Amino acid sequence: MKAPWITYRPEIKVMDCTIRDGGLINEHAFDDTLVKAVYDTCVAAGVDYMEIGYRASRKMFAGLKAGDWRFCEEDAVRRIVGDNPTPLKLSVMADAGKCDWRNDIPKKSDSVIDMVRVACYVHQIPEAMDMIKDAKDKGYEVSCNLMAVSTIPEPDLDQALEAMAASDADVLCVVDSNGSLYAEQIELLVKKYLGAAQCKKQIGIHAHNNLQLAFANTIEAIIHGANRLDATMAGLGRGAGNCPMELLLGFLRNPKFKLRPVLQLLQDDFVPLREKMDWGPSVPYNISGQLNQHPRAAIAQRSGANKDRYVDFYDKCISEG
Amino acid sequence: MKAPWITYRPEIKVMDCTIRDGGLINEHAFDDTLVKAVYDTCVAAGVDYMEIGYRASRKMFAGLKAGDWRFCEEDAVRRIVGDNPTPLKLSVMADAGKCDWRNDIPKKSDSVIDMVRVACYVHQIPEAMDMIKDAKDKGYEVSCNLMAVSTIPEPDLDQALEAMAASDADVLCVVDSNGSLYAEQIELLVKKYLGAAQCKKQIGIHAHNNLQLAFANTIEAIIHGANRLDATMAGLGRGAGNCPMELLLGFLRNPKFKLRPVLQLLQDDFVPLREKMDWGPSVPYNISGQLNQHPRAAIAQRSGANKDRYVDFYDKCISEG
Repeated sequence: MKAPWITYRPEIKVMDCTIRDGGLINEHAFDDTLVKAVYDTCVAAGVDYMEIGYRASRKMFAGLKAGDWRFCEEDAVRRIVGDNPTPLKLSVMADAGKCDWRNDIPKKSDSVIDMVRVACYVHQIPEAMDMIKDAKDKGYEVSCNLMAVSTIPEPDLDQALEAMAASDADVLCVVDSNGSLYAEQIELLVKKYLGAAQCKKQIGIHAHNNLQLAFANTIEAIIHGANRLDATMAGLGRGAGNCPMELLLGFLRNPKFKLRPVLQLLQDDFVPLREKMDWGPSVPYNISGQLNQHPRAAIAQRSGANKDRYVDFYDKCISEG
Repeated sequence: MKAPWITYRPEIKVMDCTIRDGGLINEHAFDDTLVKAVYDTCVAAGVDYMEIGYRASRKMFAGLKAGDWRFCEEDAVRRIVGDNPTPLKLSVMADAGKCDWRNDIPKKSDSVIDMVRVACYVHQIPEAMDMIKDAKDKGYEVSCNLMAVSTIPEPDLDQALEAMAASDADVLCVVDSNGSLYAEQIELLVKKYLGAAQCKKQIGIHAHNNLQLAFANTIEAIIHGANRLDATMAGLGRGAGNCPMELLLGFLRNPKFKLRPVLQLLQDDFVPLREKMDWGPSVPYNISGQLNQHPRAAIAQRSGANKDRYVDFYDKCISEG
């Protein structure tokens, strides 16, 4: 009996998405102190990338109340990281259809950001391809994050992957937006993405925790060859949240990763944050995950007075399923 | 691409351990109303077995304050289930070294209990073998639950499995008491138990949720051939708790299982229970699971004023590791 899990793959890189995905809970309005604490923790813990928010111009959101991390203007990012004199790379996410990417994203030489992750739904693949080319031409490392993969029919996914594989993206990320995938499905998807990429790109995994499977599915993706792993501090993220960084770093065997700074952050900043924000697996998210539905109904349920009326919520989800 | 997970294995049987494992949090002092609610829910949900507590005689615990479900005297059990005129089978756990099993366990014909699960540590295998024979001779279905398997050196485990395989036990259960096992380890253990049993016994899985892997590990055990699955309502159980019934029943595809009664129970009885009892994965349990330590230190941490001082706890666990 051998134990391959006690070794490690040096190629594995961890991305912290705490502020970016967590921003979907609070309109991206984290104060600088918390963003800086997460940044410092990522540096101290040996995390490879930190995704600090979405990149977009304020003019597309003129009517919306949204904090700085919805836009990640260069000034705002530099308030936190200065010139980022650390090994930690910085990422922003750019949504197809939700930013004026030609103008919103400066050349890499004018930015402290290292990576652009292009997020799109399957019907937005053509725009995503243009966005990837644009970001690559500007000098960034680029990931293509095709969202809600659990809802995409296989012919559509195959077609999308063909385009993604032919693009300049460095990373193709398996994104379980609904938090509905089981390990066997993760295996099939990672193998499919790897096959499409033909060893020319890295495969990533972005899991949601609706079924308490975000960590397990991240491990499963590692086993089958994914090297780019998304995680968040205390699992902070929309709805049921993401793969918890404290579990992932406790699992990975590369000695460059340090758990203790993460525990310090959780103790100092995330215990109080729990008083103000709601995230993590709970029954409504269990249900929406099991039914492979978008978490928006569960999020609405959790924020209302009927948050623990599980049966009504279940009946409603089933009837609309 | 095929999807074997949308079918089901009729052999799979689910055991609810809510009252038995949850009793380790509250000295087995659940009131009859809750025990009856769990029983009724198991019947309505199509659960196959309910483990209602430990079997032991009060004389061994004369000095201890412990509720009825530490003893499961016939009268107490019948207060809840009457003659149990349902398809739900009832189980009690009997601990090696902690009961006078020759006298504490009546003949099956004098009891409403259907199954005895003999729990032992590896050094108690000889007594467990005697207990299994005794329970089998008395007419029960019998399981052997070798606890804390993640701490047993392989030669010892192989020797124990040889004895367990030669016993009259119907079920051999993989028990991850420390909640420290990853999927690949579950795979190896299930295969090892199956190999030892040579298809003559069923293999079970009892997972703890320290690493948010109890549900994932239960699925992994199913994939590799385990047919006896332990779960608890809302994951209630000592420390980080167990595989949540609401996730497991939402996953299993056998139409005999019904999720809705479980959601009703969670809504009516487990939302208020959360105010009174502490269970489920939290950082101290993450740490003890990662370090493959008994959860007792994490339980103590969670119950004290320093429950969120994660770094001190980590440093202490590491220094004692």
